[in-house]
Amino acid sequence: MKYRVEKDTLGEINVPEKKLWGAHTQRSLQNFRIGTEASMPKEIIESFAIIKKAAARSNHKFGILSTNKKQLIEQACDEILAGKLKDHFPLVIWQTGSGTHTNMNCNEVIANRVKQLTENDFQWKNIELHPIDDVNKSQSSNDTFSAAMHIAAYKKLTGSLLPALKELHDTFNRKSEEFNSVVKIGRTHFMDAVPITLGQEFSAYSTQIEKGINALKKTLPDLQELPLGGTAVGTGLNSPVGFDDEIVDKISEETGLPFTKAKNKFALIAGHDAFVQSHSALKQLAVSLLKIVNDLRVMVSGPRAGISELKIPANEAGSSIMPGKVNPTQIEALSMVCTQVIGNDTTISVANSYGHFQLNVFKPVLIANFLESATLLADACNSFNTNCLFGIAPDTEKIKSHVNNSLMLVTPLTPHIGYDKAALIAKYAHTKKCSLKEAAVQLELVTEEQFDKWVKPGEMTSPNVAAKKNK
Amino acid sequence: MKYRVEKDTLGEINVPEKKLWGAHTQRSLQNFRIGTEASMPKEIIESFAIIKKAAARSNHKFGILSTNKKQLIEQACDEILAGKLKDHFPLVIWQTGSGTHTNMNCNEVIANRVKQLTENDFQWKNIELHPIDDVNKSQSSNDTFSAAMHIAAYKKLTGSLLPALKELHDTFNRKSEEFNSVVKIGRTHFMDAVPITLGQEFSAYSTQIEKGINALKKTLPDLQELPLGGTAVGTGLNSPVGFDDEIVDKISEETGLPFTKAKNKFALIAGHDAFVQSHSALKQLAVSLLKIVNDLRVMVSGPRAGISELKIPANEAGSSIMPGKVNPTQIEALSMVCTQVIGNDTTISVANSYGHFQLNVFKPVLIANFLESATLLADACNSFNTNCLFGIAPDTEKIKSHVNNSLMLVTPLTPHIGYDKAALIAKYAHTKKCSLKEAAVQLELVTEEQFDKWVKPGEMTSPNVAAKKNK
Amino acid sequence: MKYRVEKDTLGEINVPEKKLWGAHTQRSLQNFRIGTEASMPKEIIESFAIIKKAAARSNHKFGILSTNKKQLIEQACDEILAGKLKDHFPLVIWQTGSGTHTNMNCNEVIANRVKQLTENDFQWKNIELHPIDDVNKSQSSNDTFSAAMHIAAYKKLTGSLLPALKELHDTFNRKSEEFNSVVKIGRTHFMDAVPITLGQEFSAYSTQIEKGINALKKTLPDLQELPLGGTAVGTGLNSPVGFDDEIVDKISEETGLPFTKAKNKFALIAGHDAFVQSHSALKQLAVSLLKIVNDLRVMVSGPRAGISELKIPANEAGSSIMPGKVNPTQIEALSMVCTQVIGNDTTISVANSYGHFQLNVFKPVLIANFLESATLLADACNSFNTNCLFGIAPDTEKIKSHVNNSLMLVTPLTPHIGYDKAALIAKYAHTKKCSLKEAAVQLELVTEEQFDKWVKPGEMTSPNVAAKKNK
Amino acid sequence: MKYRVEKDTLGEINVPEKKLWGAHTQRSLQNFRIGTEASMPKEIIESFAIIKKAAARSNHKFGILSTNKKQLIEQACDEILAGKLKDHFPLVIWQTGSGTHTNMNCNEVIANRVKQLTENDFQWKNIELHPIDDVNKSQSSNDTFSAAMHIAAYKKLTGSLLPALKELHDTFNRKSEEFNSVVKIGRTHFMDAVPITLGQEFSAYSTQIEKGINALKKTLPDLQELPLGGTAVGTGLNSPVGFDDEIVDKISEETGLPFTKAKNKFALIAGHDAFVQSHSALKQLAVSLLKIVNDLRVMVSGPRAGISELKIPANEAGSSIMPGKVNPTQIEALSMVCTQVIGNDTTISVANSYGHFQLNVFKPVLIANFLESATLLADACNSFNTNCLFGIAPDTEKIKSHVNNSLMLVTPLTPHIGYDKAALIAKYAHTKKCSLKEAAVQLELVTEEQFDKWVKPGEMTSPNVAAKKNK
Repeated sequence: MKYRVEKDTLGEINVPEKKLWGAHTQRSLQNFRIGTEASMPKEIIESFAIIKKAAARSNHKFGILSTNKKQLIEQACDEILAGKLKDHFPLVIWQTGSGTHTNMNCNEVIANRVKQLTENDFQWKNIELHPIDDVNKSQSSNDTFSAAMHIAAYKKLTGSLLPALKELHDTFNRKSEEFNSVVKIGRTHFMDAVPITLGQEFSAYSTQIEKGINALKKTLPDLQELPLGGTAVGTGLNSPVGFDDEIVDKISEETGLPFTKAKNKFALIAGHDAFVQSHSALKQLAVSLLKIVNDLRVMVSGPRAGISELKIPANEAGSSIMPGKVNPTQIEALSMVCTQVIGNDTTISVANSYGHFQLNVFKPVLIANFLESATLLADACNSFNTNCLFGIAPDTEKIKSHVNNSLMLVTPLTPHIGYDKAALIAKYAHTKKCSLKEAAVQLELVTEEQFDKWVKPGEMTSPNVAAKKNK
Repeated sequence: MKYRVEKDTLGEINVPEKKLWGAHTQRSLQNFRIGTEASMPKEIIESFAIIKKAAARSNHKFGILSTNKKQLIEQACDEILAGKLKDHFPLVIWQTGSGTHTNMNCNEVIANRVKQLTENDFQWKNIELHPIDDVNKSQSSNDTFSAAMHIAAYKKLTGSLLPALKELHDTFNRKSEEFNSVVKIGRTHFMDAVPITLGQEFSAYSTQIEKGINALKKTLPDLQELPLGGTAVGTGLNSPVGFDDEIVDKISEETGLPFTKAKNKFALIAGHDAFVQSHSALKQLAVSLLKIVNDLRVMVSGPRAGISELKIPANEAGSSIMPGKVNPTQIEALSMVCTQVIGNDTTISVANSYGHFQLNVFKPVLIANFLESATLLADACNSFNTNCLFGIAPDTEKIKSHVNNSLMLVTPLTPHIGYDKAALIAKYAHTKKCSLKEAAVQLELVTEEQFDKWVKPGEMTSPNVAAKKNK
Repeated sequence: MKYRVEKDTLGEINVPEKKLWGAHTQRSLQNFRIGTEASMPKEIIESFAIIKKAAARSNHKFGILSTNKKQLIEQACDEILAGKLKDHFPLVIWQTGSGTHTNMNCNEVIANRVKQLTENDFQWKNIELHPIDDVNKSQSSNDTFSAAMHIAAYKKLTGSLLPALKELHDTFNRKSEEFNSVVKIGRTHFMDAVPITLGQEFSAYSTQIEKGINALKKTLPDLQELPLGGTAVGTGLNSPVGFDDEIVDKISEETGLPFTKAKNKFALIAGHDAFVQSHSALKQLAVSLLKIVNDLRVMVSGPRAGISELKIPANEAGSSIMPGKVNPTQIEALSMVCTQVIGNDTTISVANSYGHFQLNVFKPVLIANFLESATLLADACNSFNTNCLFGIAPDTEKIKSHVNNSLMLVTPLTPHIGYDKAALIAKYAHTKKCSLKEAAVQLELVTEEQFDKWVKPGEMTSPNVAAKKNK
Repeated sequence: MKYRVEKDTLGEINVPEKKLWGAHTQRSLQNFRIGTEASMPKEIIESFAIIKKAAARSNHKFGILSTNKKQLIEQACDEILAGKLKDHFPLVIWQTGSGTHTNMNCNEVIANRVKQLTENDFQWKNIELHPIDDVNKSQSSNDTFSAAMHIAAYKKLTGSLLPALKELHDTFNRKSEEFNSVVKIGRTHFMDAVPITLGQEFSAYSTQIEKGINALKKTLPDLQELPLGGTAVGTGLNSPVGFDDEIVDKISEETGLPFTKAKNKFALIAGHDAFVQSHSALKQLAVSLLKIVNDLRVMVSGPRAGISELKIPANEAGSSIMPGKVNPTQIEALSMVCTQVIGNDTTISVANSYGHFQLNVFKPVLIANFLESATLLADACNSFNTNCLFGIAPDTEKIKSHVNNSLMLVTPLTPHIGYDKAALIAKYAHTKKCSLKEAAVQLELVTEEQFDKWVKPGEMTSPNVAAKKNK
């Protein structure tokens, strides 16, 4: 490979000739060979392009950056946003905890790209863009990387995860209505209990997801705050008065999203509580989803020796050794994602607790885990929704047989004959392997007529309505 | 010990003569000898007393419980609430996952206490209160234990934790104002950085706590919902029409707190997402507090070989071997509490993920961890606030010496001479162990006058204000 | 209450007259009102009594403590060990992170108890025992509290948890043999798969527990190391040469347990990796047990609408509203304990990561969580073993019907007719709701004779044995 | 793109013409668009190649696979191992929880690669390799994916992580010896305490890592066990007698590593306790390392307003706004890795708890997290070791000034004048801001000569040796 020589305050260093990064990036590349290459999330690079562009515009407005320089920075940023410079961001998550290397990577790529654009061009003669003095003007890694985290997270949640969750919620809702009249056995302690409709069961799932969505939405305002204009420690040293308002406006304009100026810039650079808060909602959703799909897993179990109350689409051959097997693979993929999100929550909590003074230096690991959770949840919800939930259907025959055989149908006798006598009937039926009605009559505790009048599985699922009807 | 014979559907069993519990409780006591005795939180027992009283009133209103029975149940519940029957709730957390044993314990104690109250009393002749048919009327363990969890948690948060957090927040706020003019060295990467005021540093702490409080408050509405009237699986079987509205009203009246009827009772019995959500806010606070007190711990380090920028009250002798030692013990206690809360969050997440169908059967462990976290945080915040934060004071001499020696004061030269030359000055001063000004002048990059004009630590902490002033 | 005045280096303070503790304890009591009273585990107090006794003997041997003082300290320690002084240890977990307050509590109680014993007794005239200079001689809180943690943990594991696990393992082993010939359906992806025996299924459980026990045993050597003789920072300042060997010998003698001198005392005071290591084994066991009992929960589901392959003892009435219900309550209690242990593992990891320099100051929370996990696991295993596993029995009728109906019995046809054709048969049988044999014959892929020869559920569970037999 | 048509039991499907995978892989690709593409770890693909090759050889030995087929499978596997077929494994982690899709991906690629190799070649005429009937012969996804997990993990730990840890340990050890005579202030509660040597401090770090290495090594035997020969549920259905021994031998031969046959195949397919156990050791190391590098971070703090007892190499410019800043970036990268490992441990615990019956279906997420932790720890330890620890050096001047000023040097006076008087001296010196000696003499508690004789910081770090010397 061919190299060119770059230099920074530490001296000279070789950089691959065709790469747009500079000395700082090259040092990071050599000093941090940890894990998969180029693992810094692309969403962070994009957010940096948005920030650098807005900063150039703001600096220009404040009269501290020339029109030419502003335009050139804008052009380079637009190329990054268009995905044209992907090969020039080689750094990993596991670098300095402030993300400084990635900020410098952006500064350097923009400066060098501008150099490419302007050299040999008469129009731009005498323009020299310094990666720090110009591209990074009025900024520090500390406020920009923090702000990039906020922008990337907010965009991911509103643009990707929330729509996916909404669709999932809609499907559960629709299924809940569709299954409204399917009376089935309820289960408590994983044991037969009193009846419920399949629609009611799905309404609980729908509610859980809705509550998760609401919990997540409540965390958005803290993500919308950007600590730009705070520079190194939050005081805003080396940035002009009003820069904070200006750059946030420019970013909101560029993205069409309602970002706001941080009320306290010190707090948002020193800690990332907004991410702890917001990821907790992702964790809540993971926990709820794990419960929900685990229920579904059990209800599709079978086909002959399981519960088999639900049928799912067969999307692939289930087994390399057992022919004809259909497995709940979408459920499994989503379940695995949920366990990942639960673990990521621990990482994020520990990482955020470990900040010191004016700077939390776990920024890359925080945002990488956050974005992974949000992406995986969004993708897995979409996949599960489309490839499984859409096609889920009740096995009404099996459902009916389960509910009609249940001993817990004895429960509505309690208000009539008391708990103790009702228990006797259930035990008798269980021991004699007979029906409840047979038990009730043989024990002479209830007449056949009474039994038929009081024990109606369908009415047991909406007793209030039933009660009204009986009045 | 003397015993009396009690019986239930499983047969006879001996119960200590002086104890008010019955057969069901006694079986649980014998079958679950796990951990500390009587570990079920007292807040749950109290919440049950509130529920049983409200249920009796509601049942009476619906004409399915006599006035006599209602009054007697009320009286027994009031005794529980007054703390008079503490010795009659011997059960542990580690029982059935629905908390049924504790519900039955309450039912039995109320029934037996009423028996005590009425026997030998002509007035109450012929009154026989059945623990299930009467005390548990229109209820199931599943909806009542879930509701008791909500009531206990909501009361703890609003009555104890939020006030403690508010006081802590107020102190940090007050300190922030008090320390507003104390200019000190900022630290990023735990290394010297540009200046900041101690007030600004404390404003970040104050903001973090404020954000934690807000996050917590947003979770309250889900805790306010009570799934009463849902009985076993959420359908409300065996409870009268309108019972749900009625009992929630009665509870709100009794407690003076704004409880509401669950929008979806199925979801609140099958899962406890409200607790995952709310405890996540406790975890967020724990994470923030861990960061904050860790900063303080470093700033009080010394007295001679540490950072020593802050002084704390000496509340006790610090060491059994090193005389005269003062340790940040309140910080340590609070830190330990934070790690407990972070771990409890994992427990709560896993436990809530593991529900099946219509019933989550990790209710006792969920609420026990929740209440522990809330109680410990409240107590530890109060203790830290009173015994440490109140008395915290800056060591202004040390602070001044730190900031004045700092090499990072070079930063405001950047807009004037560029990043690279400013870096040269800092390196020179570091190597030569001289002052920045000496370095600047010796390197002939800045004149003495320029240096004095541009490098003003105090103005560096509010550069915008300073900038305005200079215009 | 009546008080007496005590004093320490901070001045005078009132102490309840009848309590044996002194000024240091009283200050802690007042300054740390956090959580349940007197929450410091009693096992730590006992371990301190062991240490103080051994220290007195060692100091005496080195000629720096008189015979009288040694005897008196021994007597007071024996009273603590006999449980006679329980009311004099009022401190909580949430105190200084070094546990200094509890060390001082022990020093003070011993000194004051000796004062009680000796005052008015001519024999002991002129004996004055100083809580620090005598009782704490050659020790620091830092090495003694750390050592007390090791002693308490090692005793709990070997004396309580390992025996409980061994019994549980034995029962699973016995059941595995007992169920060896019960051929049942295997399940993969929670779906019907090829047969196994119930004995094989239980052998997996038995193996998991055995591996957990082995994992736990491997962690014991690090717990056996005691950093005594290290005093404040590990150097052993103020303790005589050879004190470390001597006191560890004395403790081994007293307890009959093989404690050893720490190879590196610095490491064992500054960090508690031995507890992270050992608790990880508890977590592994919790994870395994959660899987195991969850399987059992599903297999006992029913009685009429579940899997119902296993029957468990009915230890109590299952429901306050559904008469006659039997629930897997022991499984639920053990499951809850497992989630607690998993969360405690997070607490212990975070707490141990947070040490600074020569002293980890999360000692009380570390040991409290460790002991809680060990105690709960031991108790819950015993309870589950006795009250549930012992009485577990197969429902052979249900098991036989499940295995005989299974479509996955098609698998042994694969080596004969290939995967694709075998899959066809399974699909055909599923769609037509007929038996596999019928499907095979109708599709003319296998003759009835071939089917009977190749598809033998019993032989499918030990194909190798079967294969041998067929040779 | 051009496509060819493939088919399986579900029907026909288009596959990109140049790709070697088949219908099963294609369906997975389409049905599971979750997260980063091709995320299944390459180590798993390699382990599968090892297994498929060994299976072919074993099947051949048992006379159920022709020599031709064996050779062709071997050739294709060797190409996978040589990295030549990388582009043909497009699947993600988030697929079926058994990893069946990846097993089928391997089967299909091998079969299709053999087809490529043999078509148009007279020599191989009439050879048709079936992905399941031949390549997967005597195997199931369930035993092979589990075995691939064991092989990949064992190789990673022994080939990569353990060597990295050993080097780190060696450096700490060497530094410990090198710094043996550097007497410095000890710190407890982050406060000045009695002296230790820097070598002693580093010996604690060395010991922690050594204990972590030992803990990890103890977990290897369980990883060495392979459940091959168990096929779908552990019984070994459709595999010949002795296949298990044979294939494990072949794998040990191929890899040169001591793999063993699983003692209980049921347990190793149904659960992955070996990974919980082994990852717990990774977590322990992460926790220890977090503590260690946090200490170092504090000791390098400064350069002028920190502790500054250690100096680290300046590998890059530290700040984009503060010129001349050197930050502990290697420490930060390693710290972030540690938090990732701690979170991954939660994921692995939860995922392993969630298995059902004969099959844990969280296999991909388990192994992905395991390999990520091991890789990141290995890489980060290497990076930190080379780029930071190697070059770490004491600032002896600062260290000397810290220890000589310390008030805790009062401690060795305790055996001579008692704790209370020694405390008086320390307090006096603190208040009067004078030296300890001045305080001691002014308070007339010790003479100057006594003070000089008793208070010798250097001897305080090895008091036993010093004591001997004084005798």
